[in-house]
Amino acid sequence: MSNNRAATTQQSFAMNGGDGPHSYLNNSNLQREATDTCRTMIEEAIAQKLDVKCFSSNPLRLVDLGCSVGPNTFIAMQHIVEAVERKYLEQGLKSQMPEFQVFFNDLAANDFNTLFASLPTERRYFACGVPGSFHGRLFPESSIHFMFSSHALHWLSKVPEELLHKNSPAWNRGRIHYTSAPDAVSHAYAAQFDHDMEIFLNARAKELMVGGIIVIVMAALPDGIPASQIPSGVMFDLLGASLMDMAKAGLINEAQVDSFNLPVYAAPLEQMTDLVKRNGCFTIERMELVYRESKLVVPVSGKECGMHVRAGMEGIIAKHFGSGIIDELFDRFSNKSVEFSHQLESSQREGAQLFAALRRK
Amino acid sequence: MSNNRAATTQQSFAMNGGDGPHSYLNNSNLQREATDTCRTMIEEAIAQKLDVKCFSSNPLRLVDLGCSVGPNTFIAMQHIVEAVERKYLEQGLKSQMPEFQVFFNDLAANDFNTLFASLPTERRYFACGVPGSFHGRLFPESSIHFMFSSHALHWLSKVPEELLHKNSPAWNRGRIHYTSAPDAVSHAYAAQFDHDMEIFLNARAKELMVGGIIVIVMAALPDGIPASQIPSGVMFDLLGASLMDMAKAGLINEAQVDSFNLPVYAAPLEQMTDLVKRNGCFTIERMELVYRESKLVVPVSGKECGMHVRAGMEGIIAKHFGSGIIDELFDRFSNKSVEFSHQLESSQREGAQLFAALRRK
Repeated sequence: MSNNRAATTQQSFAMNGGDGPHSYLNNSNLQREATDTCRTMIEEAIAQKLDVKCFSSNPLRLVDLGCSVGPNTFIAMQHIVEAVERKYLEQGLKSQMPEFQVFFNDLAANDFNTLFASLPTERRYFACGVPGSFHGRLFPESSIHFMFSSHALHWLSKVPEELLHKNSPAWNRGRIHYTSAPDAVSHAYAAQFDHDMEIFLNARAKELMVGGIIVIVMAALPDGIPASQIPSGVMFDLLGASLMDMAKAGLINEAQVDSFNLPVYAAPLEQMTDLVKRNGCFTIERMELVYRESKLVVPVSGKECGMHVRAGMEGIIAKHFGSGIIDELFDRFSNKSVEFSHQLESSQREGAQLFAALRRK
Repeated sequence: MSNNRAATTQQSFAMNGGDGPHSYLNNSNLQREATDTCRTMIEEAIAQKLDVKCFSSNPLRLVDLGCSVGPNTFIAMQHIVEAVERKYLEQGLKSQMPEFQVFFNDLAANDFNTLFASLPTERRYFACGVPGSFHGRLFPESSIHFMFSSHALHWLSKVPEELLHKNSPAWNRGRIHYTSAPDAVSHAYAAQFDHDMEIFLNARAKELMVGGIIVIVMAALPDGIPASQIPSGVMFDLLGASLMDMAKAGLINEAQVDSFNLPVYAAPLEQMTDLVKRNGCFTIERMELVYRESKLVVPVSGKECGMHVRAGMEGIIAKHFGSGIIDELFDRFSNKSVEFSHQLESSQREGAQLFAALRRK
């Protein structure tokens, strides 16, 4: 029940805590823009698909899976609460308006102190923090009405093991991701995502009430586009190249780069659709790739690009290489982002994000 | 709903976080001993008073109000879960055994990161953290089956305001507590406790299901004993005297001592009984003063005494006087505890703790 195995493997995957210059709190604008794009779609899912009449029991319980430290989670959950309230009013159910309880979930290593300190003062819900990996059970059976997960499901529960074996065709020498890697590496990542999503969907199927909705916004790979040509792929290639430059300069060991891989994956629409169908517990109310409005449409500074990646990746990189390399690495990465800004600008942004609204059968 | 006014006034009342030498985590043995004393009484309350047959809905939701950072809360909640499980088994309801969800509540300033990092790996419940003051609503209506609060309800929501007015008969010059103070000061504390408990009981009455139980273990004043003769009273007097010594030595300003008061209160049994009866939402299943088994029965070292008080009071003292005085103050307090160890040893420990089991009508 406590799902500690998964939690342990994920200890270093939490976003940067606190409210300093490298914190996720101050470097999550891109995620916010992306969530804004999907706001209308989330509201439509609630208006059209959430059958509030079938939820007799007060209160209504909402979850954000992979909430990090805010402020994006507060903005999103506020929108969701308001959309549900509108639905009650529009259906003439004002007298049955429920109380709301919002569960903010992330790994136990997430900075919940910062999250709790910045909770909106005027919130119209009771707030809880739930520590633990969403690659496992987090809530009692049939206890949740609506779940949301934004920019979190691209995190795998762990690096695929075959990437670490020198004799494996998936050994990922000189790279830190499946972008620009042999097929065996991509396949290992895809298989890990299959495995993780099966566990994820089974857990959510237990936790959601019948008729409950889960909305997922996540990184995706547009049809027919190589992973190295979406914005995150370009950035991970540049980050890997920065590490290899440091290895060549003798600042880190090349074997350390060989054994380091980012446990993140952008799924194609077809793979995600197949996984949900195979699971069988949900109807697909909506599933599509969406255009990702982003500052990346206009050239961003190398520094901004570096800050964005650092807020999300510093923990996992520092755990593997030591925190001593972080400043040097992200200086190099920022410079590389400027040098290769044409690659970032010409990367395939359209369809690099997946929106799904699933309903518990 | 969010109860932020109370939370704001209480920002500095959280126990010392982290796992360092002055942390509550490493200085909460006395509270643990006291909870151990009541363990049998808690188990009896569950065995005799919790009507599990009337709780049809899965899951069973449990709360610790004022949990601090552990490990005491984990030990207590584990015992409570086991006692409820035994009750289901004894009543032949094994097939209806519920899942458990445990809500760990404390102020938003509590160190939830440390709490979550030390959650037992083998727990048989889903864990949540709930930031906020229990002097207000924390949970949706009728959503909780069992509540527990140990060594937390002696914290007032704030210092009674009349203590801070120079022209008030309750101006508490040269003292930091109502121990050894004029009656007007004690009355102001008692009135604040009345006010706080009314809000506390109304909030819990909303949150508990009909038939739900709240067990309270808290500091109490034995009948006919002056507040200055119970162990906490002796310690607060010594702490106040240490601050006055520092004022006389010119290390702090005497006016700072005049305007500082500890917002803690040990209620007599009769006052607590009256408050519950006046509230009217609960039946008193059990309410009595208990002998507090404690290391204080045998002489404790001055250092140990200092560490115990520091873990609980450092935050609120540092907020008022600045953190620069803390080491000096607790050195002086430890020395004073040795000097006046006979007062501590002869203090009235019997009945200095109250046990209450209340059932929601």
